[in-house]
Amino acid sequence: MDIQELMRQKAQAAKAASRQLAVVSTGVKDKALRLMADALEKRSELILKANALDLEDARQAGLKHSYLDRLMLDENRIHKMAEGLRQTAMLPDPVARDDYATVRPNGLEIRRVRVPIGVIGIIYEARPNVTADAAGLCLKAGNAVLLRGGKEALRSNMAISSLLADAATKAGLPQGVIQFVETPDRAAVDAMLHLTGLLDVVIPRGGAGLIRHVVENSSVPVIQTGTGVCHTFVDASADFDMAIRIAVNAKTSHPSVCNAMETLLVHEAIAPEFLPKLSWAMGEKHLEMRADARAREICPEMHEATEEDWSTEYGDLILSIKVVPDLDAAIAHINKYNTGHSETIVTNDLRNAHRFQREVDAAAVYVNASTRFTDGFEFGFGAEIGISTQKLHARGPMGLEALTSMKYLIYGEGQIRE
Amino acid sequence: MDIQELMRQKAQAAKAASRQLAVVSTGVKDKALRLMADALEKRSELILKANALDLEDARQAGLKHSYLDRLMLDENRIHKMAEGLRQTAMLPDPVARDDYATVRPNGLEIRRVRVPIGVIGIIYEARPNVTADAAGLCLKAGNAVLLRGGKEALRSNMAISSLLADAATKAGLPQGVIQFVETPDRAAVDAMLHLTGLLDVVIPRGGAGLIRHVVENSSVPVIQTGTGVCHTFVDASADFDMAIRIAVNAKTSHPSVCNAMETLLVHEAIAPEFLPKLSWAMGEKHLEMRADARAREICPEMHEATEEDWSTEYGDLILSIKVVPDLDAAIAHINKYNTGHSETIVTNDLRNAHRFQREVDAAAVYVNASTRFTDGFEFGFGAEIGISTQKLHARGPMGLEALTSMKYLIYGEGQIRE
Repeated sequence: MDIQELMRQKAQAAKAASRQLAVVSTGVKDKALRLMADALEKRSELILKANALDLEDARQAGLKHSYLDRLMLDENRIHKMAEGLRQTAMLPDPVARDDYATVRPNGLEIRRVRVPIGVIGIIYEARPNVTADAAGLCLKAGNAVLLRGGKEALRSNMAISSLLADAATKAGLPQGVIQFVETPDRAAVDAMLHLTGLLDVVIPRGGAGLIRHVVENSSVPVIQTGTGVCHTFVDASADFDMAIRIAVNAKTSHPSVCNAMETLLVHEAIAPEFLPKLSWAMGEKHLEMRADARAREICPEMHEATEEDWSTEYGDLILSIKVVPDLDAAIAHINKYNTGHSETIVTNDLRNAHRFQREVDAAAVYVNASTRFTDGFEFGFGAEIGISTQKLHARGPMGLEALTSMKYLIYGEGQIRE
Repeated sequence: MDIQELMRQKAQAAKAASRQLAVVSTGVKDKALRLMADALEKRSELILKANALDLEDARQAGLKHSYLDRLMLDENRIHKMAEGLRQTAMLPDPVARDDYATVRPNGLEIRRVRVPIGVIGIIYEARPNVTADAAGLCLKAGNAVLLRGGKEALRSNMAISSLLADAATKAGLPQGVIQFVETPDRAAVDAMLHLTGLLDVVIPRGGAGLIRHVVENSSVPVIQTGTGVCHTFVDASADFDMAIRIAVNAKTSHPSVCNAMETLLVHEAIAPEFLPKLSWAMGEKHLEMRADARAREICPEMHEATEEDWSTEYGDLILSIKVVPDLDAAIAHINKYNTGHSETIVTNDLRNAHRFQREVDAAAVYVNASTRFTDGFEFGFGAEIGISTQKLHARGPMGLEALTSMKYLIYGEGQIRE
């Protein structure tokens, strides 16, 4: 069978299953999530055996340590996956809630309720835990999933997804709600991106290259996630200690994630006093600093930043630094170079805080806090399928609500339109 | 200048304008809408002159009467466009409302507010009134627009859009919020579909061919609108008079629109009694009926339906008819052939009404009312930019709310993440 046909069949099976899943009760879905969690723990030896083979191949292929670490599973990581599923089971069901209701002059009663989206495609890279996390969240919101993981984690993902699918069916979910793409062929991704009418949305989770490929080639609607060129602007009125604490946290607490800071902007009025303090604090963390000419006049130990630095997501212990004349210049810089993810101002000026929040174009705009908080758990959603950097459907951390659509239910007594 | 560069410049101008427009007050936006309305009426002779030239060319090109009618403007139609803008001015501003707020255990205050999307691209066909309607709605929600109308209406659209843009600027809106594509070259459409990062969404309004082209080729997010293969299911317990009244209204009150019925399904238990009555009522409206074998046994005057009929949006006085054994078969038929627009059941059976609404997958699912009500005005939104048949972002009639995105505003006092 060719890959297009294979993908079509998987998507058709998922679509059929999604129609049944859409009307399954919360209790049955939650039971399925708990049985899925149990299955991962009880049969962990299957997963670990598959993962050992994946790891062995990855080592022989010379993949670097950080990659191997993302790929690696142990009992503890399997336990965490299982716990994630159990937590998802405890979250409120997002399906069936009303968010608009009206009675029209002609007597028609119109309600808008949340419904599952249908079939969600997830294309992801190294981490095998995404298989369990994404499947669990999609199922809780009543959606079938079509999962396509990275080829390096193929055996791990197959072990996890087949355990999950079996447990889901045993718990009473319709057969076929979890579909996994078993072929490592990249053509499967392109086939997936053209399953219009069967796949309702595709969510890429991974590096910038994967996301760009999906956005540029998909005729299925896409939710774009995860690229973050995040900024911290230290305003003239900032508390220096707070500014340094926030900057150090935003840059160094987890440099590889998308809500980490990449560029620090500082008001020229305080730059001469602030930058040496910052340089000292960041130097302690072994950070490479790349600065514009004005900052380097103050701190000659900093390297020279190029135009490219302003739009680079380092994901590493590197920070670009720029001195700006005022708030307007800071906002203009951010709106020119950011990816619409998370931005923060450190200030004691009410008006500047307000303008920054209004005028900066990003999913999350902070006053006096670290950008590292942009996350579904930190925002109180109890879960996260990713962080949307686009403006349609969902923006910022996506919890269960972002995995639903809506439907109008209209009750009449024979009304016709004039 | 090549077309790609031209489109990029227009989109960049729109993007810059959209940043300023996003923070303009409701009062200024509403004043602009009223001045835009006045300008259309006061300078109607400019529009009518341009329209006469468009009409003359269309006549010479041999375009059919219904097409010419859609293209034609007169004082009355211009007045209606102006009134549409004035009504938009009176609607509540969708921007800045909260829809989520929480204080986290660490003291972070998180609010989610509605914000404009940014720059909205509209690609449309014959009707020049879309120029005013779409520009007015986008502006009210704080968005800049990039408009691309059909080439047959080029001069009419240019006259309208330049009057609107002038009036908007005079009222105090930033220059460049209304961008119109003056070239009839189709390459402009394809360039538009790849303005990723500048255009936040593109909404195609027109025939199935246009919509398919946009969905298949756009790397900018798309909101798909307007294809409607809508069904009426007449259940065994239906009130016959009500069923016929609803069916006649759904099919014949405006056959060319997307919420008109295309297929009628009838329960086999009542088909022998119901279909002759339906046939008589529809015959009075000069309707062509295309039926399956079982219906034709009862009403031999009906034509034979082919497989293709079940998925055809006639947009005309043609109806396909099928006898089904039960509710399950009706739901299965609808979920197989519909376009996710509007479906109705005529029934007196509570459980069937409930199952139909839950299990039919469409934007609007009715009980005992005509599908013709699916419309932003009828649903109480006061306006409509189109009817979404997709599940992401917006589904069903799209009012002003659908033209907004959201943004998280976070207030802290120095919080950092552990």
